[in-house]
Amino acid sequence: MNTYYIGLDFGGTNLKAGLVCREDGKVSQITSTPTMPHEGPMSVMQRMAELVNSILVNSSIPKNTIGGIGIGVPGVMDLDQGITRFLPNLPGNWPDVPLAATIQDMTGLPVHLLNDVRAITFGEWKFGAGQGASNMACFAIGTGIGGGLVVNDQLILGIGGTAGELGHITVDLNGQLCGCGNHGCVETYASGPAITAAGIKAVTQGLTTSIGRMANYDLNKITPELIAQAAQEGDPLAQDIYHQAGVALGVAVANVLVTVGPKRVVFGGGVARAGELLFNTVRQTIDTRVKMMPVEQVELVQAKLGNNAGIIGVAMWASYRNG
Amino acid sequence: MNTYYIGLDFGGTNLKAGLVCREDGKVSQITSTPTMPHEGPMSVMQRMAELVNSILVNSSIPKNTIGGIGIGVPGVMDLDQGITRFLPNLPGNWPDVPLAATIQDMTGLPVHLLNDVRAITFGEWKFGAGQGASNMACFAIGTGIGGGLVVNDQLILGIGGTAGELGHITVDLNGQLCGCGNHGCVETYASGPAITAAGIKAVTQGLTTSIGRMANYDLNKITPELIAQAAQEGDPLAQDIYHQAGVALGVAVANVLVTVGPKRVVFGGGVARAGELLFNTVRQTIDTRVKMMPVEQVELVQAKLGNNAGIIGVAMWASYRNG
Repeated sequence: MNTYYIGLDFGGTNLKAGLVCREDGKVSQITSTPTMPHEGPMSVMQRMAELVNSILVNSSIPKNTIGGIGIGVPGVMDLDQGITRFLPNLPGNWPDVPLAATIQDMTGLPVHLLNDVRAITFGEWKFGAGQGASNMACFAIGTGIGGGLVVNDQLILGIGGTAGELGHITVDLNGQLCGCGNHGCVETYASGPAITAAGIKAVTQGLTTSIGRMANYDLNKITPELIAQAAQEGDPLAQDIYHQAGVALGVAVANVLVTVGPKRVVFGGGVARAGELLFNTVRQTIDTRVKMMPVEQVELVQAKLGNNAGIIGVAMWASYRNG
Repeated sequence: MNTYYIGLDFGGTNLKAGLVCREDGKVSQITSTPTMPHEGPMSVMQRMAELVNSILVNSSIPKNTIGGIGIGVPGVMDLDQGITRFLPNLPGNWPDVPLAATIQDMTGLPVHLLNDVRAITFGEWKFGAGQGASNMACFAIGTGIGGGLVVNDQLILGIGGTAGELGHITVDLNGQLCGCGNHGCVETYASGPAITAAGIKAVTQGLTTSIGRMANYDLNKITPELIAQAAQEGDPLAQDIYHQAGVALGVAVANVLVTVGPKRVVFGGGVARAGELLFNTVRQTIDTRVKMMPVEQVELVQAKLGNNAGIIGVAMWASYRNG
């Protein structure tokens, strides 16, 4: 009966929402508004409700075919109670904000929360690169590294919905300090900022590389994309930066493989757009390191749903939780 | 109707079997015989069948109440076909041996296979330290480190039943070579042989420690138990050996926590008998390193079923697979 769900991606910079058809995952009515998180939770939640209401008003779909709202949240929450616990990148960190109940009151629709990267995982599994895999892992590699896992055809949640924090897998117990407080997380080696930092370091140290010239010697212009381009044009230092990132990412993937044995691993996020430049090293690393399982059966694939994966995923999650 | 299952633990040295009541996990009729693996698969399988038949003959339980046989296998196999693929510690490695079908033919009872440490995990979950936990991880720490995972009330299998190879989680990508071919597996830091090697090294280097004296300067007498005893009597070097093992084990546990978010972690095997000496450091390590989840909710507990965990677990697995 309820064929549509609204997916809302709660980002630190923008709120983005869309109407998702639960039969085919197609998204329409995509709309966004600045988050303006400095104004505090109540103000942000009002903007969320306005965004949802603008979809309800502009859509020709009858309201009774819309089953509810899913919100992809950047942090830790109590999923059953719909309360945020710790959103690390937002001012004040949103402890104990009754997000689901508030949006439900404001819109009249049932609301379900899910971590934003678990939402991407769920979306890619339902309608993207994970379709048909009963067991899969997803790495979303951007400013940070997030993730998610599907085991036996279920998205794993773990304590407080924190299962799938794959960016914080330790690959070197004596490694460098991560933003989370741990040492040697894969995020410190293979995230966008880690790759950028390696490029900046090479340029400021005067090492032989085309990265500086390509950025017109403006350090602000050094990005993972620019370094990837340099690598693809044959710059050995840029290639080495991606190789190092790929080895660390490969070790994290290897750890996921020996732990849960998924059939498929999906890579999304901006850094994953480097494609083979990154994946060749990941493949080589797991082939060399994982001896305890038939690793040749593991498929490494790129995410398919692009920027809408989170909206699609969290809308499908709301549909799933609504029963 | 079928209230009893036979559990058979296929070890490199001994075959051990028992009759397990599936209602309460109680095991009786425990019997064992040498494996004599050098005589080859057919001879070993005949001894397995004799062991099973001796239980059938000696037990007063009617045969029609015995639903089948579970075999805990030390290696990789095709679970659905019941064929062994790679048993690393047995002569010839048992490639493509139709173990389940052969024992079924010899005994007239349905046979199900499971990796031996996944069997321990399943046993501890059903009737031991894991009871009541919908999500748990198990580390069995002995000559090697094995493991298993229960997620959403299901034992995870993964490709070829290899999910749960927790001893081969990489904790230092530049670490020492492991027997599996990888570098920096937790097994190279925290297994029995790793702890023994650290003790032997300290003694042969003439470092200040009571380990040598306690072993009467016989290197063959240096064991994890002896080093644990030295540590408990206040020997700082012995304490440091367990501390190093505990840190590496803690990092592996941390990796499992951020990946699947289990509520409980069970530790079994000989090395785990060191108890608090090891677990205090594991606890401290995960408290320090895991910032992405409410780690204080994670319970670290010692295994309860002792040496019969594998027999109980694999019998229960056969019952579960029989439906």
